[in-house]
Amino acid sequence: MSRTKTRKAGTHETSEIYIALVHYPVYNKRQEIIAAALTTIDIHDLARLAATYGVKGFFLVTPLEDQLELARDMIDHWLTGWGAGYNQDRAASLKLVSLAENIGQVEDRIRETSGSRPLTVATAAGDGPGRSSFSEIGSRLDGGRPILLMFGTAWGLASEVLAESDYILEPVKGSAKYNHLSVRSAAGIILDRLLGGR
Amino acid sequence: MSRTKTRKAGTHETSEIYIALVHYPVYNKRQEIIAAALTTIDIHDLARLAATYGVKGFFLVTPLEDQLELARDMIDHWLTGWGAGYNQDRAASLKLVSLAENIGQVEDRIRETSGSRPLTVATAAGDGPGRSSFSEIGSRLDGGRPILLMFGTAWGLASEVLAESDYILEPVKGSAKYNHLSVRSAAGIILDRLLGGR
Repeated sequence: MSRTKTRKAGTHETSEIYIALVHYPVYNKRQEIIAAALTTIDIHDLARLAATYGVKGFFLVTPLEDQLELARDMIDHWLTGWGAGYNQDRAASLKLVSLAENIGQVEDRIRETSGSRPLTVATAAGDGPGRSSFSEIGSRLDGGRPILLMFGTAWGLASEVLAESDYILEPVKGSAKYNHLSVRSAAGIILDRLLGGR
Repeated sequence: MSRTKTRKAGTHETSEIYIALVHYPVYNKRQEIIAAALTTIDIHDLARLAATYGVKGFFLVTPLEDQLELARDMIDHWLTGWGAGYNQDRAASLKLVSLAENIGQVEDRIRETSGSRPLTVATAAGDGPGRSSFSEIGSRLDGGRPILLMFGTAWGLASEVLAESDYILEPVKGSAKYNHLSVRSAAGIILDRLLGGR
């Protein structure tokens, strides 16, 4: 197992890290490309992870206008509505969330904020060609370029997303052969491996 | 940050690891002790983590009979009902799940299976007295004694559970000060830190 243990503090510029939870294009169980429905629990869990690991922004990506509205309403509830008074931890994490229609739009927004196009890193549950190890990706985290880590919902990011990414991260492997984590658990493990020692 | 990097293969007996998701006694938002409701998404996510990291058994702990019945029905659906044909990955993880009314019952069952009482390790999101580091707990994983890692739902395990445990694991800390992960994400990070290099 490879972890990012050897980055030297102070010798590089720390990159801004962004994450995206992608609902299209992803696979369903039959390997067909779909737009997956948003689930509020994914949004809360990944927002909390983003807040824990110093992630600069968390993009929810879906082309479905009704889903974007739903997400907007949910986030408003916790940021400025009744929920803001009830649970301030949720507001602190959800303020990191932005909505986007597609991955290109996410890259544009990061470029507007950070001044350069992000290096895109797709995550995948399966093995395949061109995977980069955790330590390889870890070594990119101090290059100064912003980094966009992309997580797929449903049965994972479509192969076109993997093909167009700058890097594809190797899958999380435990000690057994079972390889079907939820995106909530996988995102936690990936952020901890890449950013936990920062 | 401490990780378990230095265990030597072959020099110790590998311990069997068990996890428990505890719904009583836990705190609610106002620090009152409650029995939290089961949520199916927690059960699926932690079962998948257990299968990924070679965990020997996953105990759902609640004293509420209707909740135990609900869990039994849900697990049966995926193990032997319609769901077994639809999604075999769920069956492969849910077969690790057992139900128990309290933590004492979990310890008894592990002793019956493994021949010795487990070392109990409580997890907590907060700092406090007597926390053991990840590397301290990691060094116990090859002692031969079974280990029971306990996760609390709602606002976390009651202080009496922490007091009665053999160890209390230090909280997961990221690179920021925010400290409110879901049990789904925290359990993934903890299992990966303790067992990911096994």
